[in-house]
Amino acid sequence: MLTLPPTAAASLTLDEDRLFPTGVTERAIARELYGHVRSLPLVSPHGHVEASVFADDVPFADPAQLFVTPDHYVTRMLHSQGVPMERLGVPRRDGGPVETDGREIWRVLCAHWHLYRGTPSRLWLEQELVELFGVGVRPSADTADEIYDVLRARLAAPDFRPRALYQRFGLEVLATTDSPLARLEHHQRLREDPGWHGRVVPTFRPDSLVEVLAHGWTDRVDQLGEVSGIDATTYRGFIAALEQRRAAFRAMGATATDHGHVTADSQPLSPDEAERVFAAALAGQATPADAAAFRAHMLSEFARMSCDDGLVMQLHPGVERNYDDAAHETFGPDVGFDIPRPTEYGAALRPLLDRFGSHPNFTLVLFTVDETSFSRQIAPLAGVYPALRIGAPWWFLDAPLAMRRFREATVETAGLYNTAGFVDDTRALCSIPARHDVARRIDCGFLAGLVAGGLLPEDEAVQTAVDLTYTLPKQVFKLDAPGPRDFPG
Amino acid sequence: MLTLPPTAAASLTLDEDRLFPTGVTERAIARELYGHVRSLPLVSPHGHVEASVFADDVPFADPAQLFVTPDHYVTRMLHSQGVPMERLGVPRRDGGPVETDGREIWRVLCAHWHLYRGTPSRLWLEQELVELFGVGVRPSADTADEIYDVLRARLAAPDFRPRALYQRFGLEVLATTDSPLARLEHHQRLREDPGWHGRVVPTFRPDSLVEVLAHGWTDRVDQLGEVSGIDATTYRGFIAALEQRRAAFRAMGATATDHGHVTADSQPLSPDEAERVFAAALAGQATPADAAAFRAHMLSEFARMSCDDGLVMQLHPGVERNYDDAAHETFGPDVGFDIPRPTEYGAALRPLLDRFGSHPNFTLVLFTVDETSFSRQIAPLAGVYPALRIGAPWWFLDAPLAMRRFREATVETAGLYNTAGFVDDTRALCSIPARHDVARRIDCGFLAGLVAGGLLPEDEAVQTAVDLTYTLPKQVFKLDAPGPRDFPG
Amino acid sequence: MLTLPPTAAASLTLDEDRLFPTGVTERAIARELYGHVRSLPLVSPHGHVEASVFADDVPFADPAQLFVTPDHYVTRMLHSQGVPMERLGVPRRDGGPVETDGREIWRVLCAHWHLYRGTPSRLWLEQELVELFGVGVRPSADTADEIYDVLRARLAAPDFRPRALYQRFGLEVLATTDSPLARLEHHQRLREDPGWHGRVVPTFRPDSLVEVLAHGWTDRVDQLGEVSGIDATTYRGFIAALEQRRAAFRAMGATATDHGHVTADSQPLSPDEAERVFAAALAGQATPADAAAFRAHMLSEFARMSCDDGLVMQLHPGVERNYDDAAHETFGPDVGFDIPRPTEYGAALRPLLDRFGSHPNFTLVLFTVDETSFSRQIAPLAGVYPALRIGAPWWFLDAPLAMRRFREATVETAGLYNTAGFVDDTRALCSIPARHDVARRIDCGFLAGLVAGGLLPEDEAVQTAVDLTYTLPKQVFKLDAPGPRDFPG
Repeated sequence: MLTLPPTAAASLTLDEDRLFPTGVTERAIARELYGHVRSLPLVSPHGHVEASVFADDVPFADPAQLFVTPDHYVTRMLHSQGVPMERLGVPRRDGGPVETDGREIWRVLCAHWHLYRGTPSRLWLEQELVELFGVGVRPSADTADEIYDVLRARLAAPDFRPRALYQRFGLEVLATTDSPLARLEHHQRLREDPGWHGRVVPTFRPDSLVEVLAHGWTDRVDQLGEVSGIDATTYRGFIAALEQRRAAFRAMGATATDHGHVTADSQPLSPDEAERVFAAALAGQATPADAAAFRAHMLSEFARMSCDDGLVMQLHPGVERNYDDAAHETFGPDVGFDIPRPTEYGAALRPLLDRFGSHPNFTLVLFTVDETSFSRQIAPLAGVYPALRIGAPWWFLDAPLAMRRFREATVETAGLYNTAGFVDDTRALCSIPARHDVARRIDCGFLAGLVAGGLLPEDEAVQTAVDLTYTLPKQVFKLDAPGPRDFPG
Repeated sequence: MLTLPPTAAASLTLDEDRLFPTGVTERAIARELYGHVRSLPLVSPHGHVEASVFADDVPFADPAQLFVTPDHYVTRMLHSQGVPMERLGVPRRDGGPVETDGREIWRVLCAHWHLYRGTPSRLWLEQELVELFGVGVRPSADTADEIYDVLRARLAAPDFRPRALYQRFGLEVLATTDSPLARLEHHQRLREDPGWHGRVVPTFRPDSLVEVLAHGWTDRVDQLGEVSGIDATTYRGFIAALEQRRAAFRAMGATATDHGHVTADSQPLSPDEAERVFAAALAGQATPADAAAFRAHMLSEFARMSCDDGLVMQLHPGVERNYDDAAHETFGPDVGFDIPRPTEYGAALRPLLDRFGSHPNFTLVLFTVDETSFSRQIAPLAGVYPALRIGAPWWFLDAPLAMRRFREATVETAGLYNTAGFVDDTRALCSIPARHDVARRIDCGFLAGLVAGGLLPEDEAVQTAVDLTYTLPKQVFKLDAPGPRDFPG
Repeated sequence: MLTLPPTAAASLTLDEDRLFPTGVTERAIARELYGHVRSLPLVSPHGHVEASVFADDVPFADPAQLFVTPDHYVTRMLHSQGVPMERLGVPRRDGGPVETDGREIWRVLCAHWHLYRGTPSRLWLEQELVELFGVGVRPSADTADEIYDVLRARLAAPDFRPRALYQRFGLEVLATTDSPLARLEHHQRLREDPGWHGRVVPTFRPDSLVEVLAHGWTDRVDQLGEVSGIDATTYRGFIAALEQRRAAFRAMGATATDHGHVTADSQPLSPDEAERVFAAALAGQATPADAAAFRAHMLSEFARMSCDDGLVMQLHPGVERNYDDAAHETFGPDVGFDIPRPTEYGAALRPLLDRFGSHPNFTLVLFTVDETSFSRQIAPLAGVYPALRIGAPWWFLDAPLAMRRFREATVETAGLYNTAGFVDDTRALCSIPARHDVARRIDCGFLAGLVAGGLLPEDEAVQTAVDLTYTLPKQVFKLDAPGPRDFPG
């Protein structure tokens, strides 16, 4: 890199107009629209913060554990420039040595701050540092320790404990993501806790029960039997047990399921064939073709169940998980080595949509990491099927430019009211307000473009901004019915 | 949705600068360029208005039948938000009950007006309402009846009959789309009518003769024999009969053909193999593979015929028709359930382009609904093959943002003079001026960007705007030779 | 085209702010950033100018041979509008007659100047005409001869000889592209020439040795044996001979290899299977499947060699070469008939990245002509693998709008520091400064957008602009070590 003369530490500030269009007219309109939505409550129908975080309400301790080690957006970028995962504290499966000093890990991040120029990670981190922690200097090798000390001190304060943050962030509802095997005891504790005034609901995510060739599947089938009280070792029992778990999730406030398949294939099997594959899988004799067929079949089955019980179905297809064998072996899943693949939606979803796409009780929220599908297939499908809503730009696409492209690629065919609203999809509690704020700013900027282009009167733009931010996610995810805590006890 | 306080009905106006870039400099240039093209005659080389509309010149009666029921852009959006097709008057195949009161249908549209924010349907409808019908209030549940009454009254006036509209719109030529089985009697009537001063020409669209597994194909082969006077029940006769129909279309003013295949495959069969497949198909024994091979073969055959007779070939591939079985069974085709698929053009068109791509008498106008192919394959192909021209953004892509992306994706590789000009592709006569106006505004805005970016002198931009709007479509579609009606009788 | 009244020849000038964003704020920032990079030395790690051009230092003679005949960007556009290749002087394989009068060829170009509106060819040519040759009138049929005379006169002057241009352009290093069969004698001459003060290095491009079904492959294997001094007719000998050639290239200053495969497949074969396929190929018995498997295998082998010897690996997949049979037969390769195809990177590169993607001595620079892969696969891969860097937008994408899209599609996932910097990839020496200038302007404009959007402080933007322009290409291509000529002899 170019070596600039050493300077006094640069300041860190947030531009009040960040992410808005840069033209004078559009920016003024965007600012106006944003004024109507910036303080609306946060609706978070798809997240990965654990319910135990709020049930236990234990303070966060280590800034590195909060900002670096578990955030695969952050660690993968450092790894891409040669920083070993071990230096970032990512635990090795073999228990081998990794950095445990949070200060050292934080220093690595700050010394590589330039890598994040133009990335959403930088946006989120900066907003957290400035707004939440009051940091005023730009991270760098020189300022790392100073910032670390500030973070440590703040995290020790009572108003930085999880429940306090939930309130401060203006969260109205937060969904967790949970295995069908989960007994949801932390959700139960929250419901019974008179000192808890928020709304945290589980989400039913059955992928681990669907991947019949994945390590430990038969064990999980046994556990499913235990937790449900229904023998799950026959295909019919397996289905009944899953239905029992869905009912248990609903009882705990769940309104949605989530499914992360490698493709969107949804071809159902005949009952006989489904039984045959299930039995073969339990016997350890399923082929890869069997596994793929069963996965597609189960997607259709879960859609069928959603028609029955009303749980909103979320589908996130098209990611090759654990792409790198060595990284997977050393560090396990979810460390940044998941890679998108070209994903087809039309032929894949046809069996499912043919059967359930116009069912009045069914909602399917469809996500993608292959953004070419937005204008080609997802918008055309969502623009005609009443059950279908387009999920927010997800994962690698959860970023300002990609969000803008998402609106531009879908609005003309599917409009704005066939989209489902922002989901933050994060396990990083402190980043939730920043993530929602980015989406609000981008949507207001997009609407400002429609206004400035003479396509939308300003009063309609205001209404739309509010709907995209607040009304739609509550409606689509069926969160507009009052939650259990909304009733006076 | 956010409930705003009830207001007096909002006004409906058109922004004079709509769709132009929002920056001051670019907008001023765009406005200047648009001034040179806004009033140029409309050249419509690809449409779906029937010749009988002008031959009969019967007034349009029902606003719902004009604006809602037959417009699948409009109906699919309402359906996507849960409005049954029956409430929109879409006829059921089984003759079951559907709404027949135009006023009720119109009310449904107006009550859902917000769904169209950001869509081209809203743009087209607003321009029609304001410019053509003089409506000045925004559609809503409250204003539906008032607007309906205005529309009804206007449609009854003589200056709203089809011939009057043709003149008022400044149409110079309008192509219809016709089966080879058509006897073109309405075109004949127009040519013989001394009171008719326009130019309406047929387009040869033989898809229904090419899909050998489609219901009724053998009957159509028989009808082809009848209308052509050539026994079409042998492969040679079939080809000769199609050639006869092309000659008949040309005699009636046709300059083009149109082909809507599911892929762009163009691999020819040997004559023996073509005969075998044709005979098998007539005997009801063709396989799906046979059908696909025959479709590809016929695409090459039609290209060969175009080299012989000079008819411009249009190809619109990549749409899965009648995606939803239930909707197809209930309502038939063309009700909004056609879905694009990823479409490959290079390998698919190679046999055809190898043989005819440099033929001096051949023009192939290539359309797509998979916009990723614009920069990847279509622009590279059109940038070297003299026969190839890029068709306007089509169907789901016939919209402002998609049009802009089309120019941006193709100009750097294929330039501007390998594109074919706008086609309105509509059966909605009243929407034709609005559709052309959108394209003119977007192209002027795009050229303004080149000027403001220092890439194109303004005098060249003016010339280019005129060429894209008027000169190119006339040249590419061979409409610059005077039509029969241009000669003094 | 619209015929405008004849005017005095229009002037030809360059807008100082060309290619910058058109908004006032962004443009001012872009201009400021550009001021920091416009005069930085040119680093050209991937080019096609021959070393003999500098070794011989013979003046360029004919403007047509400099600007038209060998430039397939230019000739394919003229061909697309019906100009035969023969009129442009493109030599026929059969020795048939082609235009040899440079003036006539130049006239054809000027008469079709409007075809290049909006294309990079026009940008490059205009900058060359104005800045290098001092031409001040716009090319047209009327001005062709006048301009031709200016070009002829300038080209005869000593300061237009290749070495003088190298200096004037501020080239710091220029890589050529060479077959493993090359003895690099012109590179040797330059190294021994005391009057030469530049740095020209070879690049190892072994495609012709990898395509076992290509005409003449067995002959080339024999030649490889001769030039390397190692019998290459066994698989082991073949590998050893290639390794010998890499060492010879490195000795002559090479830092990189280049590979232009039809796909990115990288599945290695077992040693036995590799030997079997190689032997079959030598015996003329390889199947197309063998050829594809061997190509994929060799890609992995070359990656393995790069880990050993440190040569940076460049991969340019996804182009169907010689798409048109007749054009290939008549004119040979590289005349504009190469067409991109949809290209998958994740599954294809997985074997290679699994083995070498985190190797500390390995750098893979990945290019594409399928821009959909930037956000979908290439940025996600480059954002985690330390070996991987994203190559500049290439070939059809080496153009302003595509460059901008490239940044927008990659920055949010891979950042800016996982990209490799601009490569001009040209055999047109005179166009090199213009090509780099376009990239610098676009990158400055992109960074200006980040600054104006409140996402990047201006001091960081300045540093980034310098890094993208100069620092990164030197680092990534390992050109930051001093070249042999940088040491005092």
